[in-house]
Amino acid sequence: MTQQQNQFMSTPAAEAAPAPVSFVAPRRTLMGPGPSDVHPRVLAAMAQPTIGHLDPAFVGLMDTIKQQLRRVFRTQNELTMPVSGPGSVGMEACFVNILEPGDTIVVCENGVFGGRMKQVAQRCGAKVVAVDDPWGRAIDPAKVDAALTQHPDAKALAFVHAETSTGALSDAATLAEIARKHGVLTIVDAVTSLGGVPLEVDAWQLDAVYSGTQKCLSAPPGLSPVTFSARAVEVAKQRKTPVQSWFMDINLVTGYWSGGAKRAYHHTAPVNALYGLHEALCLVEEEGLENAWARHRRVHEQLVAGLEGLGLKMLVPAAERIPQLNAVMIPDGVSDEAALRSRLLTEFGLEIGAGLGEFAGKVWRIGLMGQSCTEAHVQRCLDALKSVLGR
Amino acid sequence: MTQQQNQFMSTPAAEAAPAPVSFVAPRRTLMGPGPSDVHPRVLAAMAQPTIGHLDPAFVGLMDTIKQQLRRVFRTQNELTMPVSGPGSVGMEACFVNILEPGDTIVVCENGVFGGRMKQVAQRCGAKVVAVDDPWGRAIDPAKVDAALTQHPDAKALAFVHAETSTGALSDAATLAEIARKHGVLTIVDAVTSLGGVPLEVDAWQLDAVYSGTQKCLSAPPGLSPVTFSARAVEVAKQRKTPVQSWFMDINLVTGYWSGGAKRAYHHTAPVNALYGLHEALCLVEEEGLENAWARHRRVHEQLVAGLEGLGLKMLVPAAERIPQLNAVMIPDGVSDEAALRSRLLTEFGLEIGAGLGEFAGKVWRIGLMGQSCTEAHVQRCLDALKSVLGR
Repeated sequence: MTQQQNQFMSTPAAEAAPAPVSFVAPRRTLMGPGPSDVHPRVLAAMAQPTIGHLDPAFVGLMDTIKQQLRRVFRTQNELTMPVSGPGSVGMEACFVNILEPGDTIVVCENGVFGGRMKQVAQRCGAKVVAVDDPWGRAIDPAKVDAALTQHPDAKALAFVHAETSTGALSDAATLAEIARKHGVLTIVDAVTSLGGVPLEVDAWQLDAVYSGTQKCLSAPPGLSPVTFSARAVEVAKQRKTPVQSWFMDINLVTGYWSGGAKRAYHHTAPVNALYGLHEALCLVEEEGLENAWARHRRVHEQLVAGLEGLGLKMLVPAAERIPQLNAVMIPDGVSDEAALRSRLLTEFGLEIGAGLGEFAGKVWRIGLMGQSCTEAHVQRCLDALKSVLGR
Repeated sequence: MTQQQNQFMSTPAAEAAPAPVSFVAPRRTLMGPGPSDVHPRVLAAMAQPTIGHLDPAFVGLMDTIKQQLRRVFRTQNELTMPVSGPGSVGMEACFVNILEPGDTIVVCENGVFGGRMKQVAQRCGAKVVAVDDPWGRAIDPAKVDAALTQHPDAKALAFVHAETSTGALSDAATLAEIARKHGVLTIVDAVTSLGGVPLEVDAWQLDAVYSGTQKCLSAPPGLSPVTFSARAVEVAKQRKTPVQSWFMDINLVTGYWSGGAKRAYHHTAPVNALYGLHEALCLVEEEGLENAWARHRRVHEQLVAGLEGLGLKMLVPAAERIPQLNAVMIPDGVSDEAALRSRLLTEFGLEIGAGLGEFAGKVWRIGLMGQSCTEAHVQRCLDALKSVLGR
């Protein structure tokens, strides 16, 4: 070690640190693929003083949140809770609990998140049978049926209900029915669908379902609501090998989240984030879940009419669209789409989403999620687009 | 399915949902093992409107936080960032990136969190060599040296710097020196030590270090600052097998957290939680890290003097104590210690921690972490204990 390094290491703070400056968040209108605009009541809830993760008042809140999540997932599943991490952790929690090395799983890929499912399943040591559909289209149930027929040893079928990367909505009820016919469990990505379109976990008999908080629930990102059917819980309990993730092992984490006065410490829950999720779920309940679904559909139609009025074309066929995630083709003549999005952000405070994967540079993704799904949002977006496109 | 069940499933919300009620957090003084009291500036920061996780303003904040974490960890490590999950995820992130199936690791256990390390390492398919020390005591460097001598094939040594379950502080500098002598990497739990006692990641040449936000940094729980040395990054890059966790794979997540204008989307960061962490780190920098260490030491001595003045005995020998986590023996004659803690909570709004593992029912854990480490906290705690113990 040189003398100079040694001096530096002994007083790094004094030499390197600029004066600390508080962060002031800019004002944005969030119409990308999430996060969506967060209601001031949710922000205020999160700013309440932190209390202990084993405080009886907090344990009561946990129970309330579980009940709220059951209602929004439309399920009676006992194992229904928010995982303490973003949607990707919820995804991984579903796969690592259900799959063991050597298991076969059929995974549908019609966008980025189906692709991620394949990677996660492979890292569980599973054999992945891919069912590919074109990006921007719904999953084809006939292909799924064929793949499950060809692979009678499959343990599960995994698919994305609402593909955030493309705006394509798949028929989860039909896909789950096919899975049941073949006797396999379903793992369902409901990150963008929950709260925005009908999702019926019990009526459709879905098995392991995960979502996120920052889409149609309009809570800040960082939590992943999940629900496991009794069948899925049983499969996780009967495993021959331990779940590869200690943190995500539902046999451990439910000791903390499950009912009863005696909660076993597992990890320290993100207390303030859960204050926020609770308040966001209160807002959903005040409106009524079915009213929220109807609002997403209605406002989506307004947006589509407006975009088409500007001469823009939607990526996804009308019957397969997710109301809350609208992929629109970037028009010919736009040479630098990133520059236009940058102008939307700086001149209008408006965030819309870029294309992902094979649609990077080809589409924009306009979110109408939760609190960002209002007629006023549509108008603001159309006005801003009109301006930057010069139409 | 019975007719009744069917009816219930068709309208679960209408039949089952009570009117939504906003949660009002009770006022607490947090003197348990974490979370600690959160400064109003941090709460206010978190209540700022959510912005996008790829917004240039947010990307700038991410860079600032990385710099702040480097200063508080006392490191120049490029890979220094907050993992989007609680400390247990930070722990698992260190193990899954470093270990491959069949690797040998020496894990020190002198409390709950060393035990958790063993479980996490086993779930990576590693062969675990345990070095056990009595709970409530520091790790014995001689035993570590012997274990590494006996297992020349070991890849890493894992230990807990400050054992939150017992209040015992181990000599991380010496343990790391032994590891280097044997040519193995170190994985270090700094959950409770960071910000409260000297921790010198570069000077001690630690390799994979994880912490939490809800201890001496006094930010809300839910994030886990981690730092990886260049050696550790290289080991993760040269792996023969993929990291078993997609979410925790540092080869993927650094695409989002690493510098440069082009950030690759990996997951949606917990935006508001990061507002809070940033502000909490500003508070640490305003005080000065070394001043914070001195405060924890000074206030700890006041607490110990006060507890001994009440006739209580500390669990850990004086030379091995963590200032910010004080395990005190529950005095003879207390038949229902949980009832006493419950009285502290309801009558005094004071949270202290229960014993864990073999110390359940035998000790209380009194935290003096971050914003909860003041003379006023000590006085409030001593007054309340005096009252409920009738001393």
